[in-house]
Amino acid sequence: MNNVLAELITIGDEILYGQTLDTNAHWMSGELDKIGVKVIRRTTCGDVEEEILQVFKEAEQRASIILITGGLGPTSDDLTKPCLAKYFNCDIVMNKQALAELEAYMTSRGRELNKLTRLQAALPEKCEMVSNERGTACGMWFNKDGKVFCSMPGVPHEMKFMMLEKVIPRIKKEFHLPVIYHKIVRLAGIGESWLAEKIEDWENSLPENVKLAYLPNFGDIKLRLTASGNVLDQLKQQVGLLIQDLLPLVTQYVYGYDDDPLEKVIGHLLRKKNQKLALAESCTGGYVAHRITTIPGSSDYFNGALVPYQNELKIEELGVNRVTIERYGAVSEETVIEMARNVKDKFSADYGLASSGIAGPGGGTPDKPVGLIWIACAHGNDVRTRKLNLTKDREVNIRLTSVALLTLLHQRLVEND
Amino acid sequence: MNNVLAELITIGDEILYGQTLDTNAHWMSGELDKIGVKVIRRTTCGDVEEEILQVFKEAEQRASIILITGGLGPTSDDLTKPCLAKYFNCDIVMNKQALAELEAYMTSRGRELNKLTRLQAALPEKCEMVSNERGTACGMWFNKDGKVFCSMPGVPHEMKFMMLEKVIPRIKKEFHLPVIYHKIVRLAGIGESWLAEKIEDWENSLPENVKLAYLPNFGDIKLRLTASGNVLDQLKQQVGLLIQDLLPLVTQYVYGYDDDPLEKVIGHLLRKKNQKLALAESCTGGYVAHRITTIPGSSDYFNGALVPYQNELKIEELGVNRVTIERYGAVSEETVIEMARNVKDKFSADYGLASSGIAGPGGGTPDKPVGLIWIACAHGNDVRTRKLNLTKDREVNIRLTSVALLTLLHQRLVEND
Repeated sequence: MNNVLAELITIGDEILYGQTLDTNAHWMSGELDKIGVKVIRRTTCGDVEEEILQVFKEAEQRASIILITGGLGPTSDDLTKPCLAKYFNCDIVMNKQALAELEAYMTSRGRELNKLTRLQAALPEKCEMVSNERGTACGMWFNKDGKVFCSMPGVPHEMKFMMLEKVIPRIKKEFHLPVIYHKIVRLAGIGESWLAEKIEDWENSLPENVKLAYLPNFGDIKLRLTASGNVLDQLKQQVGLLIQDLLPLVTQYVYGYDDDPLEKVIGHLLRKKNQKLALAESCTGGYVAHRITTIPGSSDYFNGALVPYQNELKIEELGVNRVTIERYGAVSEETVIEMARNVKDKFSADYGLASSGIAGPGGGTPDKPVGLIWIACAHGNDVRTRKLNLTKDREVNIRLTSVALLTLLHQRLVEND
Repeated sequence: MNNVLAELITIGDEILYGQTLDTNAHWMSGELDKIGVKVIRRTTCGDVEEEILQVFKEAEQRASIILITGGLGPTSDDLTKPCLAKYFNCDIVMNKQALAELEAYMTSRGRELNKLTRLQAALPEKCEMVSNERGTACGMWFNKDGKVFCSMPGVPHEMKFMMLEKVIPRIKKEFHLPVIYHKIVRLAGIGESWLAEKIEDWENSLPENVKLAYLPNFGDIKLRLTASGNVLDQLKQQVGLLIQDLLPLVTQYVYGYDDDPLEKVIGHLLRKKNQKLALAESCTGGYVAHRITTIPGSSDYFNGALVPYQNELKIEELGVNRVTIERYGAVSEETVIEMARNVKDKFSADYGLASSGIAGPGGGTPDKPVGLIWIACAHGNDVRTRKLNLTKDREVNIRLTSVALLTLLHQRLVEND
């Protein structure tokens, strides 16, 4: 079966000028992907008639479903509606149903309909209106030679509601869609090119209907398998078997699947074991605690963190031996070992993580250059450490170290499982 | 003078499938806007040769500057480089400078060059390489009939560095650009629509050549004035006078200008006074410490933080009175006052900040619903508090609270200035 192809068009100067981050196209892509519609292109153009008409024409040549957001406001700089009328060669006339719904919407919010807002109910004659229960700009659906144009408001919550309630169900009805199955394998502790080398043979032997993508993010990699076919259960089974072949090649790096980030997987493991975590973060400055606490319910297993940015606090609050710091320095294996062990004990936790390093861009020496970072994970009487040689970029170093620390903890949790 | 037109092309199936949110195009749009280059279209296409070549061709017909991100990894699903070679009709050959820089980069990180990574230094013969000091994929610059194609890595921090250090300066040199002057006034502690109301008359009286944009971000607002003309000094003077008129309307909310975020402005003030900061973060979970420590040199004024996620740690480590927590609860004005005061004293700081609240989505009660958050700022014997009623969204609450806390501190620092 051929794929049903879609294109997304976003209209608005404010996006081209970098004033508004367009998250609509991203979200719509994900929803279309879920139902097996393949988005082949996304285009953003400004509030300029010729541009908009040209983009419509180009999109129609390539795709069967063209979804448009933005440019539906009642003011003169909003051109989507007149452009659609021109493109479909028809007049804009007052739509009775749209007007009735608009009046009901305004009444429900205790507001009156002014002249400008009333114009929102005037639509191109050739379209079917798509109700907007969340705002004043309704959607427009056009059928043309087996193709569909649908225009939606740019306000994210209005567009999302319209997509989920109206547009997606209608696309499913009007098009014969293939079955698509995605599975993501999540890995950490290995670089992208090392991973690619390790799984080269496996990758080369993937069947035609399965595609692989690498999605790296600061030392954390998502491997995405996308299978297309006719029967979902068959695809699931097919991908399941492929992953069975993959796992032995990369076991020690795999921490989870699909939408669960490292901090969530760690949370599951800690909760299951009824064990607690504490952190002593020097160079990561609270970022690991932030990642842990973005997960709802993390108070079940996260006791707390200390960020002893000054050495004096490492000694006074965390009980690191003054002699250790004087002899080996704050950025040393000896110091992070004491930090990890002491925070575990002091905060009554089962696992203690610690970081200490030169995050940069300043503060490096020939012996201890920017990017040198020590991390440790303490559990019971055992402490494991790692030395990292990272970059000159402070923010990158903080992010990479957070992944390395969480990976160190994850490996321990899995070993003890 | 005619505008110089640009198009942005993003390449990657992972974006079309909705798995990766493309923030690169947004950021690049903003940077090009700053130098007076007009972005007329943004296109995202998949990892498909014909698609990519078609997008190159279309963009070249409309714009003078074509900037491309993504698809530069060493793996077989990355097609940007072979497509550029095909488009410019040349071979891909090992580039000596690229190889030398790649080797130096890997050596500096204590890692070896494997076969796949080595391929990153092979480039289309007709391009000039653009150094990537932050990663392994270098950029490629092509000149063709007065037009420019430049390909950059999709990893945001690598792309940003390359844009700021290499690409933007070169565009400024090779194209004759209009004179644009931007000035950003930064405000916190006021909502967007309240601000708009306060400055309505001022905004309506802005001259033709000056545009105003509101750029809100979790309670932190940038007001950007963009003046265009012929002489930079005249524009600076014009904007300076406009800001003189604006300030009296919003004095208490303005914390800084241009690129300095709240945490950096606070750092300047603390360093100037030679004063120190300490944090006790419960519901913000380390996020404020993270913001403070993203600023290079923050160890000059940041002593450290405690994240006492369990009440027991609030009592044992921070010295909050057990009776206070039992009587008023951990989320209460009484508790944050003790937290702020105690962390200030215990960590030998001049200012102590504290947060405690129900970040959500669970954990709310009728008395203390999700989104109820108390914050405090202690200095000397004086503690100031604020009660926040925020949203049901955990991440939004953490971000909004961080801005509110930093604003509370900023106001104190300015008063004492």
